[in-house]
Amino acid sequence: MSKLITIAVDAMGGDNSPKKVLDGINLHHQNSKNIFYKIFGNSEIINKIIPKTLSVNSFEVIHTEDEVKGTDSALSAAKRGKKTSMWLAIESVKKKTSDIVVSAGNTGALFVIAKLNLKMIESIDKPALSGLWPNKIGTNIVLDLGANIDCSEKNLIDFSLMGSALYKALFPNEEPKVALLNIGSEELKGTEMIKATYKTLNNQSHKIYSFKGYIEGNEMMNGDVNVIVTDGFTGNVALKTAEGTANFITSELKNAMTGNLFGKIASIINLKNINKFKKRLDPRLYNGGIFLGLDSPVVKSHGSTDYIGFANSLGMCEKIVLGNLIDKIKQNID
Amino acid sequence: MSKLITIAVDAMGGDNSPKKVLDGINLHHQNSKNIFYKIFGNSEIINKIIPKTLSVNSFEVIHTEDEVKGTDSALSAAKRGKKTSMWLAIESVKKKTSDIVVSAGNTGALFVIAKLNLKMIESIDKPALSGLWPNKIGTNIVLDLGANIDCSEKNLIDFSLMGSALYKALFPNEEPKVALLNIGSEELKGTEMIKATYKTLNNQSHKIYSFKGYIEGNEMMNGDVNVIVTDGFTGNVALKTAEGTANFITSELKNAMTGNLFGKIASIINLKNINKFKKRLDPRLYNGGIFLGLDSPVVKSHGSTDYIGFANSLGMCEKIVLGNLIDKIKQNID
Repeated sequence: MSKLITIAVDAMGGDNSPKKVLDGINLHHQNSKNIFYKIFGNSEIINKIIPKTLSVNSFEVIHTEDEVKGTDSALSAAKRGKKTSMWLAIESVKKKTSDIVVSAGNTGALFVIAKLNLKMIESIDKPALSGLWPNKIGTNIVLDLGANIDCSEKNLIDFSLMGSALYKALFPNEEPKVALLNIGSEELKGTEMIKATYKTLNNQSHKIYSFKGYIEGNEMMNGDVNVIVTDGFTGNVALKTAEGTANFITSELKNAMTGNLFGKIASIINLKNINKFKKRLDPRLYNGGIFLGLDSPVVKSHGSTDYIGFANSLGMCEKIVLGNLIDKIKQNID
Repeated sequence: MSKLITIAVDAMGGDNSPKKVLDGINLHHQNSKNIFYKIFGNSEIINKIIPKTLSVNSFEVIHTEDEVKGTDSALSAAKRGKKTSMWLAIESVKKKTSDIVVSAGNTGALFVIAKLNLKMIESIDKPALSGLWPNKIGTNIVLDLGANIDCSEKNLIDFSLMGSALYKALFPNEEPKVALLNIGSEELKGTEMIKATYKTLNNQSHKIYSFKGYIEGNEMMNGDVNVIVTDGFTGNVALKTAEGTANFITSELKNAMTGNLFGKIASIINLKNINKFKKRLDPRLYNGGIFLGLDSPVVKSHGSTDYIGFANSLGMCEKIVLGNLIDKIKQNID
């Protein structure tokens, strides 16, 4: 029997919580029996709606009086935060009573409260927000997605180490291939900081990953590399531009395909293929950002995802703990 | 009868040139009879393949011995450049014998040779590369797309002025709505440089455009604004990420839709709608980047476009001259 994993869950964050969080736990529980869920939130509400199919010995509800709201500033949330479900869930990994923490709540508050409670991994200067991104043959890790606006060469090198450790934890049978996001593939392109990072990464030998040089925005989904490193400003713009483009294209496609009778008939005939396409690009499959650099793993679920997306971020938590992410990062640094 | 416009055309740049350039000129000529094309390139090749339907009094071939290659570095192209079709086409706008110049050749070389030959508009510090981008209700102008890696507050303010002048030249009946690309919509988000630019733009009154604040990557295609301003690094990453995402989604869609018999039948029934969709997002419709900031207009066609895309960039040239772009930029600055 594999190791029992304890996941601390902030039940109160994100849209339609705690219902979607509890339904997500229940869905995840059906496939993963070695998980214990520590559920932080308002026990009066939770106890009323907790799914009956969730085994009673697989979870515990820790009552919290308060919660962080989506509209709270990160600092105000941190100030009055000690009684919130988010704070107490994070504190649970700090005290080592949980292996990992997940929240669909306020990203800024989660970042600040995690930084206040958890230590940094030695020699890492800044934590980064990493995310999953589909490519033609599998999945990319992209970081930083917005935790750090200004990054140094040292930060980007740390991101390479941490991103490849995360990739190895999630996909144990694959080799992490790291690239720097830039505006050209030639060695001389880009900012001074990127060029210096390139030089260092290119001259180092790396234990668990190979360095593949620069990558441009249009190549991110080719599948040639799987760990894409950039500063938080550029990474956030790239992520959101990709989201916006995907939404724009699918809505234009929907308009074109269902605007008349021919389109509707064709869509019915082709329903299975359309569903296959939808499933392949379903953002719920890639739900979950991981804060890297803290000495415990912290996962951020998308606030607007549903219970299926939340269950997927629980699945990511499970893989991260089984893959010994924090140990892998520390080994990478040595 | 409207004004006769002279377009200087570098016939030798880009894939399949000069054939696609000449076919593009011929296509454009069928709809626009008030254009005179000054065609710079190897006259031996050009004279053999120039389309018979192009009226003999609508063009002139200026023989050039040499051409800039796609593999040339910008500096080496500039050094030996004085006999190339690109250099001589640009010189033709410098000497005011043409109103505008277009090339599908090497972007870096075009930028450097244009800067060497043409003066900057007074008080503009850096030229920017701007492009067209579809949105839900029309078209955006985005700049800078990669001419300047490091930008100052002054540069971004200049880009707002020049981008809105370009929008007004291309879409005379619409009001330019300017936004700054950022990683959040709150006033406090972003780099110090972006925050300073926001403050200045927000406190100024603008003659020809309205300032709409920040925009995030996922909102670029919403159609709420139409002039999107950013530094060249971020703009280039955003543009290429959007291209990559669009290619990824359409190839996934194609795989899903035509992988089996149902998909093929549905595609045949739905052919008209599929074509409507393809046409709406056809990159050839948006072909043509415009260098802004020089005292003559310089248009860059995509190197890999075909004759239809090249004809569209000739159409853009025509609109830019008719719309008095350079005068509009100067008025905007006053």
